Amino acid sequence: MIDYDKFLSRAGEKMQGSAIRRMGVVAAGIPDMISLAPGYPDPQVFAWDAFAEIAAAALGGHDAHALQYGPTRGFGPLVEALPDIVARRGIVATSGQMLVTTGSQQGLDLLARVLCDPGDVVLVELPAYTGAIASFRDAQADLVGIRQDTDGLDLDDLERVLCRERAAGKRANVVYVVPNFQNPTGQLISQAKRRGLLALADRHDLIIIEDDPYGDLFFGENDEHLTRPIKADDTAGRVVYLSSFSKTLAPGFRVAWVVAPEALIAKLDVAKQAADLCTGALDQRIVFETWKRGVLTACLPGLRKHYRAKKEAMESALREHLGDIASWQEPRGGFFIWVALPTQLSGEALLAPAMKERVVYVAGAAFFVDGTGQHFIRLSYSLPSPERITEGVKRLARVVRVAMS
Amino acid sequence: MIDYDKFLSRAGEKMQGSAIRRMGVVAAGIPDMISLAPGYPDPQVFAWDAFAEIAAAALGGHDAHALQYGPTRGFGPLVEALPDIVARRGIVATSGQMLVTTGSQQGLDLLARVLCDPGDVVLVELPAYTGAIASFRDAQADLVGIRQDTDGLDLDDLERVLCRERAAGKRANVVYVVPNFQNPTGQLISQAKRRGLLALADRHDLIIIEDDPYGDLFFGENDEHLTRPIKADDTAGRVVYLSSFSKTLAPGFRVAWVVAPEALIAKLDVAKQAADLCTGALDQRIVFETWKRGVLTACLPGLRKHYRAKKEAMESALREHLGDIASWQEPRGGFFIWVALPTQLSGEALLAPAMKERVVYVAGAAFFVDGTGQHFIRLSYSLPSPERITEGVKRLARVVRVAMS
Repeated sequence: MIDYDKFLSRAGEKMQGSAIRRMGVVAAGIPDMISLAPGYPDPQVFAWDAFAEIAAAALGGHDAHALQYGPTRGFGPLVEALPDIVARRGIVATSGQMLVTTGSQQGLDLLARVLCDPGDVVLVELPAYTGAIASFRDAQADLVGIRQDTDGLDLDDLERVLCRERAAGKRANVVYVVPNFQNPTGQLISQAKRRGLLALADRHDLIIIEDDPYGDLFFGENDEHLTRPIKADDTAGRVVYLSSFSKTLAPGFRVAWVVAPEALIAKLDVAKQAADLCTGALDQRIVFETWKRGVLTACLPGLRKHYRAKKEAMESALREHLGDIASWQEPRGGFFIWVALPTQLSGEALLAPAMKERVVYVAGAAFFVDGTGQHFIRLSYSLPSPERITEGVKRLARVVRVAMS
Repeated sequence: MIDYDKFLSRAGEKMQGSAIRRMGVVAAGIPDMISLAPGYPDPQVFAWDAFAEIAAAALGGHDAHALQYGPTRGFGPLVEALPDIVARRGIVATSGQMLVTTGSQQGLDLLARVLCDPGDVVLVELPAYTGAIASFRDAQADLVGIRQDTDGLDLDDLERVLCRERAAGKRANVVYVVPNFQNPTGQLISQAKRRGLLALADRHDLIIIEDDPYGDLFFGENDEHLTRPIKADDTAGRVVYLSSFSKTLAPGFRVAWVVAPEALIAKLDVAKQAADLCTGALDQRIVFETWKRGVLTACLPGLRKHYRAKKEAMESALREHLGDIASWQEPRGGFFIWVALPTQLSGEALLAPAMKERVVYVAGAAFFVDGTGQHFIRLSYSLPSPERITEGVKRLARVVRVAMS
């Protein structure tokens, strides 16, 4: 057999698999494992009946296009609906500023390819979403981390780092943020900071990539205004906004979208032609029709309540079993609690004993582009039942206490 | 509004949309247009009933995974089935050598990223499939064309070009071919040539990317042996084989696959994590179950007959209306007839008058990486009815004759 190592590109050589996904595969094979690892939505709250009905209609044979190749830009009626969908979040945009993507991961990947040359600096939060890190790394960008406060991104640090990198001759045009219930921290960037970030971007001629998969999943009844996207206040076309149906409808459809100025959408469209020609026709029809029938909007209050109950189960178990030695910031939405263990512990090192106790989480270090964050772990409450969450945290606490003793 | 031109990467700057897709959009808006342009399969022969039944079962609510994120490698049962699916074509491979992709376009794109550095040479046929050209170009590879004879790729030219490029210091490791009913020429590479190509690849340590979406769609009852893939005789793991369910089941599912040595599959898997995490869960289930129930295998003879009848309609119209001034090689399968017009004509220049006559095709030049091929056009017979094909060729002939006069 020939050795492929010598045939790899420089990008290919450097590509490394996600430890999270690898671990997920191992964990899935162990009976009675409680996984607090993947940020998967809960199929119990998917709109199964609506999906089944819509799929039956789409496959009923009257629409020859339902399983055909489609426009790279996206299924026409869905593209036309997206301005209405984002208007509910305060974003004013035309259908010409929309691109449907095969999940937001593809949106990130297309952006990385269209905007980043090898060696370019991309500024990301410390910690940041690993999927975005992977896309920018595959484009051979250098990721540089920006500290976070409890209300998100430290803007002074951002400005300092940006000036330092540019002074060193680096091309640094892009900052990537997840302002609503960030993966992994669950944190919100405050509205004041969002405005500050936009002003900073204007001042320094930066593009903001705003990734917003969780914005609809806030927990407090009066919290919607806290989730107002940066894009809603963007008059210069500086913000590229990504969102998805994966967390609210279902990830199996792989339907998400990008909002950006037309000139950039045109480039992303071309990049997508080469990436996968078009997103699945049936998936897009189901997603569109679910929205059109009002099912998406109607299900949101239920989703918020569902995930809030799970969040509460996890927080109360954490308080009971780890409250004296671990700390975390209460998430106001989304799927994650980000736990700081005592600093002498390592989330990575605890994984093996945790898996012996049949509980698994994501070690925090993977989210830090600067090699720090060893004592953090990300716990996801979105998928398991409240009972399993409670039991999982109990198991985790046993592991932590043994390590401390 | 800010100007995005200055923010583009070098790859982004160079990306150009497919003229074929742009033209398709224009043509679709014109009433009574007969499109002989896109290589779309015919929805009339999709297995609608099976798809509807399977979708209903998958969405019935008993399988929580049916709409969840899934393994990047692909839906487990489908990955396990792929060795059986390719065995029918003579390929011996394990499930560990399989990767499910979001259409074959994604397979090409992942390969380009994992194997090609900017400036690397990729050898392609003259003419070659435009989607592959786009993926390799986006990876900033230099595409160098190899002449074709009537039985495919000119191996002497391949060897000459390869040695020339390597002597010039170029990294030239990859040759890309579509041996069965090539897009755009409809041509078969003879079995003797396939063996010659494999020997040449061994001699010069080349990787062969073998793209085979049309191999199942041969027209002659005894022609299956002509379609035996190069991969079937590959003992060194030199051939990376791509195939798809898009032409036999439906392209709207976006499900295809790559067969390659495990070391390369592992890298492609990592690249796919960053590209779109996973292929659609419902789509993969429908495709798998359609195969498992025997529907895919059972429908193939009908598909062959269906497309052969259309091919015959097109050929007989061509003979009648253009036989005296145009030439083509009879396709023994697939979706395309590749027509050489009189050399003083340009496929590109004829497009505008053709669209006025309400017929559209693809100008051949787009398929040639060396800027030649002006007088060729690609006609696709896969989608229109035999009556529309006949009428379309008649209209085309009027345009050609006016241009000749």
